[in-house]
Amino acid sequence: MNIVTGRRVYVQEVAPRDGFQIEPTFIPTERKIALIDELASTGIPVIEATSFTSPKAIPALRDAEDVMRGITRAPGVTYAALVPNLRGAERALAARVDEINLVMSVSETHNLANLRMTREQSYGQLCEVIRAMGGQVFINVSLATSFGCPMEGAVPEAEVWRWAARLLDAGASNLTLADTTGMAHPAQMARMVETFRRRWPSARLTLHLHNTRGLGLANVLAALDAGADRFDASLGGLGGCPYAPGATGNVCTEDLVHMLEAMGYRTGVDLDRLLACARSLPSIVGHDVPGQVAKAGRICDLHPEPAWLAEVREKAARRD
Amino acid sequence: MNIVTGRRVYVQEVAPRDGFQIEPTFIPTERKIALIDELASTGIPVIEATSFTSPKAIPALRDAEDVMRGITRAPGVTYAALVPNLRGAERALAARVDEINLVMSVSETHNLANLRMTREQSYGQLCEVIRAMGGQVFINVSLATSFGCPMEGAVPEAEVWRWAARLLDAGASNLTLADTTGMAHPAQMARMVETFRRRWPSARLTLHLHNTRGLGLANVLAALDAGADRFDASLGGLGGCPYAPGATGNVCTEDLVHMLEAMGYRTGVDLDRLLACARSLPSIVGHDVPGQVAKAGRICDLHPEPAWLAEVREKAARRD
Repeated sequence: MNIVTGRRVYVQEVAPRDGFQIEPTFIPTERKIALIDELASTGIPVIEATSFTSPKAIPALRDAEDVMRGITRAPGVTYAALVPNLRGAERALAARVDEINLVMSVSETHNLANLRMTREQSYGQLCEVIRAMGGQVFINVSLATSFGCPMEGAVPEAEVWRWAARLLDAGASNLTLADTTGMAHPAQMARMVETFRRRWPSARLTLHLHNTRGLGLANVLAALDAGADRFDASLGGLGGCPYAPGATGNVCTEDLVHMLEAMGYRTGVDLDRLLACARSLPSIVGHDVPGQVAKAGRICDLHPEPAWLAEVREKAARRD
Repeated sequence: MNIVTGRRVYVQEVAPRDGFQIEPTFIPTERKIALIDELASTGIPVIEATSFTSPKAIPALRDAEDVMRGITRAPGVTYAALVPNLRGAERALAARVDEINLVMSVSETHNLANLRMTREQSYGQLCEVIRAMGGQVFINVSLATSFGCPMEGAVPEAEVWRWAARLLDAGASNLTLADTTGMAHPAQMARMVETFRRRWPSARLTLHLHNTRGLGLANVLAALDAGADRFDASLGGLGGCPYAPGATGNVCTEDLVHMLEAMGYRTGVDLDRLLACARSLPSIVGHDVPGQVAKAGRICDLHPEPAWLAEVREKAARRD
């Protein structure tokens, strides 16, 4: 395995958008703002703070402008927002978003179900945004269902590369390969990251992975081994998939940072502060969250010897 | 990454012992027997069926003899049992156990806490069992806390190899490096498996991993990459660690088999049957279990298109 101690890995926080968007109870704007500001203080380099969609489509994020206005911009932190179209991009720019995140699916069926248009129509809209906004703002395009579609099944890799090529040609600053419903496995992940890096050695790549089938961190490991260095993750593992009730959501930010730091990678993130954020999350969303390190503690968090151990030790010594 | 499609990987089921032993409610003997028989029918090669300890120490497994008597031996399946000492080994042999599993900790503090004796005293007992039983039964020795001790912290690798060498010299047929409280990380896992295999190229090695901090499958991937081919796992991810309440237990059998099969490894296990076992588990133990594939379905389990998609597709087509 190709583990490069000291190598920088970028972990990007998406809970305020990808996590909060499916919470059934509206999270008050001031709590969103407080959490984003807390997250910014951990040293996390990118925070996807909200989404400039129609309030009817995603009521949970209807306060996008208020959130962007309310947060305190931390130096060095990139504030990103999801944007469905030109109108959303204009709103995001007016709200001084640093990075906009556009989405389309590699699977035609998923694109129709999620965005109510064909991939070609989505591509047209994305190009329109890139043409209008390019140069003014960093533009990421997420390719949903890059590792499989919950309705179509396997997605041909050639299709992923066809859309990747078209979007890079159109001027995307970064591509995100998204495992939207947690269908990727590590062998596929390693192969696809290698292919991407061979084909576009200077393009910036992000992996957006879900832990639906428990493979989140194993997929991160495979991607790292193939040279990836940028991952989306969600505090507490918030988020999820409407197709897999009971399964967990995004790769969990604090579990990912904990793994990376333990392995000797540099994330730039203060894990103690991040764990404090994660431990505040159940009270914000009103339910338990899947993240494990917040519950179990870090590898280096030791437990005291039980009080009765001294006696056991003494008795054992006497037996010799 | 070093992924060898078609390579055989051995997944050993430990839920009836490592999972059931900490269940607060006694699981009726006939339910244990039924589950073990179901597991045997999946093609899983090894099942740790029970433990021949004192009923006072582990009341949950006080029915060891009845369980071994009640099961139907499936051809090709190895039935293992945990054994603390010579008395337990004699009981196990009388119950026609195929493999006995002995345990000691690499950490002195953990050995005292778990086994109430020094490591040297444990080693003496283990050697006594190996001397008395060797040749009559396959003998595995598990080295608990090989990747870290929850009380002492980091465990020096040299200590792991010192005990490994002594136990192999004493005649152990297999060594299990156990990550008793989920403290291993993938870089450490890769390094230690490589070291073991370099030092003892012909010794048989098992990894017993816990998912306490979400690193279970990532650690398996690192171990596989370093050449390991034998893993303990627990149906539903049962088991756990008294030091990390709320955290999950062993690596989950069905999630592990699902990952391995998706990656092209051969486990010999019928995943559909295994998932049926896993889905029966909550009714056996009376609570939810951590395993994810039983909830989310396999990667290849597709979802039907929603009924409204036909109309969306038509409308989108008309827009062109």
